[in-house]
Amino acid sequence: MSSATSSSTSPSPAHEQTDAYEQTERTTPTRNRDRASYDREVVHSILDAGCVCHLGFIRDGAPVVLPTLYGRIGDRLYVHGSTGSRPLRTAARTEDPGMPVCLTVTHLDGLVLARSAFHHSLNYRSVVVHGTARQVTDEAELRAALDALVNQAVPGRAADSRPANAKELAATAVLRVDLREVSAKIRNAGPGDEPEDLALPHWSGVVPVATAYGTPVPADDLAPGIPVPAYLTAR
Amino acid sequence: MSSATSSSTSPSPAHEQTDAYEQTERTTPTRNRDRASYDREVVHSILDAGCVCHLGFIRDGAPVVLPTLYGRIGDRLYVHGSTGSRPLRTAARTEDPGMPVCLTVTHLDGLVLARSAFHHSLNYRSVVVHGTARQVTDEAELRAALDALVNQAVPGRAADSRPANAKELAATAVLRVDLREVSAKIRNAGPGDEPEDLALPHWSGVVPVATAYGTPVPADDLAPGIPVPAYLTAR
Repeated sequence: MSSATSSSTSPSPAHEQTDAYEQTERTTPTRNRDRASYDREVVHSILDAGCVCHLGFIRDGAPVVLPTLYGRIGDRLYVHGSTGSRPLRTAARTEDPGMPVCLTVTHLDGLVLARSAFHHSLNYRSVVVHGTARQVTDEAELRAALDALVNQAVPGRAADSRPANAKELAATAVLRVDLREVSAKIRNAGPGDEPEDLALPHWSGVVPVATAYGTPVPADDLAPGIPVPAYLTAR
Repeated sequence: MSSATSSSTSPSPAHEQTDAYEQTERTTPTRNRDRASYDREVVHSILDAGCVCHLGFIRDGAPVVLPTLYGRIGDRLYVHGSTGSRPLRTAARTEDPGMPVCLTVTHLDGLVLARSAFHHSLNYRSVVVHGTARQVTDEAELRAALDALVNQAVPGRAADSRPANAKELAATAVLRVDLREVSAKIRNAGPGDEPEDLALPHWSGVVPVATAYGTPVPADDLAPGIPVPAYLTAR
């Protein structure tokens, strides 16, 4: 990639047809570049494995990072919040050209124990999205985004719940962030100890970490005779 | 709290002796205020339950959010990174008065399924720290911070690994963020459906979510006869 294009934040015209996101200066890591990926399928699979992102924005000149539910539709991410929440009020104030955001999703996969304290590490998959957040105003897009948000947390759930009514839609604000300047980072390996440390008497290896879903707990006021749905038991 | 003090970001002189962090304008949520806590023990327990934070800072006028290992010693958080990483290079450029950061730790505890799409929610515990990051230069503090980082991921591990040597210390950069302007937010409840929705035929309740630690996997080159340490099996 030439330096002329590496600092561009706009996708090329053929962007939607390619298999990878265009690499830019700020999606190029300063270290561990071998862990970076711009592959669209890799990025999407990491995003689809979770439902909570950390949304960063600037408020009164200082960074703010808030955990937020997200949903993906193709190359668009939707972030949820009531119209009273800070990021959305900020977005509303700066609707044109939108609010600069950084949206990060991280899955911790393992604790990497090396013989040396220095080489301790983590196995993880993460995606960092640099972009602009704009409030969704089109009603059809807003409904699709709400379905995506519910289905991101529980795939298949949107169709098995009461859709938002007009009052609820009006009380809901959703931000859209287009996936353009995006990178994934993955570490999936054992410890990288120094050769001279291999004989030290410290246990070394990886403790796997995963997200575990427990047995669904019915609401206290759940009407009798409603079974746990298949989309939950399959998980 | 009066409006005169609510916007202050400096702790009172008695701050260290109190049981709660001082509430400020930006640690006061605009919604769901009942979920907020400034209790020191609550904040510390949420921080101590994890080892990966999302560190937000401003780079070239745009927000950046990166997942990072952290460790806590009392009312100080330490964030790890090599001297080549972006946040630390930025901190070095802005050492005085330090780099404005927002450091957020989130634990997802449950998926909350309501009858209505609108009332779907998450159970979670999160801590948001607003502050300033400064690079640690004192060698004793740097060593203590590295121990805290290793012990945050695996309590008890620092004492069972080779300490950093002079070369490794020189290659390591650690940022310190003092815990002053801090808040926790907790949701731990069932779905909050509208009364008129309770008879709908949709299952409703909570799917518990937890972090699961798997069986430790020894390194390929682990010397024979080194057992899995007790601090791992106890977990």
